[in-house]
Amino acid sequence: MKCKPTSQERGEARKLQVLDAAEDCFLRFGFHGASMAEISRVASMSAGHIYNYFENKEAIINALVERKVAETLAFMDEIEHEKDIGRVMLSHIGDGLTEKLDSKSSALMLEVVAEASRNPKMAELLYERDRILRARLRSLIMLSREQRGVEVNEDIDGAVEVVIALFEGLGIRGIANPGLDRAAVLRLMERIIHRVFNG
Amino acid sequence: MKCKPTSQERGEARKLQVLDAAEDCFLRFGFHGASMAEISRVASMSAGHIYNYFENKEAIINALVERKVAETLAFMDEIEHEKDIGRVMLSHIGDGLTEKLDSKSSALMLEVVAEASRNPKMAELLYERDRILRARLRSLIMLSREQRGVEVNEDIDGAVEVVIALFEGLGIRGIANPGLDRAAVLRLMERIIHRVFNG
Repeated sequence: MKCKPTSQERGEARKLQVLDAAEDCFLRFGFHGASMAEISRVASMSAGHIYNYFENKEAIINALVERKVAETLAFMDEIEHEKDIGRVMLSHIGDGLTEKLDSKSSALMLEVVAEASRNPKMAELLYERDRILRARLRSLIMLSREQRGVEVNEDIDGAVEVVIALFEGLGIRGIANPGLDRAAVLRLMERIIHRVFNG
Repeated sequence: MKCKPTSQERGEARKLQVLDAAEDCFLRFGFHGASMAEISRVASMSAGHIYNYFENKEAIINALVERKVAETLAFMDEIEHEKDIGRVMLSHIGDGLTEKLDSKSSALMLEVVAEASRNPKMAELLYERDRILRARLRSLIMLSREQRGVEVNEDIDGAVEVVIALFEGLGIRGIANPGLDRAAVLRLMERIIHRVFNG
């Protein structure tokens, strides 16, 4: 029986500690405004120690994006084996909407996208992440339509784009109009998602 | 007959010169990365001279946002008097999509929204701009539905949010997936806009 964490486990825990601190700083000061000194202060870890795990701020933001993608992929893995994907998807829209309308979870992603528009390295990361998420969403929609015996038609790539655009756009809406009528948006979202997944 | 520009006209022209230069710099370096020195270089105007027109970078970005809003309002003014608003709206979706998919026009807006999530002054500007645009879009949708004799139901506020979310989200899609199937997206957008405006 081994009760002490291995050095690898300790390393992973330290990385998480840095990521949580960095996320907090990026949300308060923005990607450019957050200094390594502030991240180090919030993480209660010396900047020198942080550099053992992450080369620079960009490497930290990459890891944060990867973490976000991993969460979404884990959700998709979970519902992929459902017998009625469309129904399960519909039952999760409320949670997805709540998360998107939370300005904290959206602001960082907006900065990453803006940064990608002028930083080729950040763009590569975003393209790759987006390619994976698109492919998985596409396959979920196809599976769902097959479950319903609905024809999988040519508009599926457009549907994938529109669904992602809608969710990411709602992240913007949560910031631009914090008082938005959530119930009215949810009703419409349910109709759109129902149409996309169930044909 | 007066051929020389008045001092007010000269002032307006100078302001435009600064705004164009600043837009260019923000797109290349981001809001935080663009320095007043660089804006001054691109505008071929001394920084001291720029401060005659704008107090700081924030005042410049405010003016850029106002300019963008004015363009959208001018478009809405134009189609408000049409006999068939739904049809005219549909005929403009292609242009709207092209503009949104152009990463240059979207990146700056994403930064403004991210900034608003942590800067109360920027947030106030965004709320006010958003309130005006929402009200105008809502009134256009209502007018269009009345023209078709369609019932104006409770879901109109949800529809306003979804339409704006979709367009703003497509700004993100243009950056995250530059190779997206524009024709497939356009077909779906037309269906959604038709449904919203024509009931």
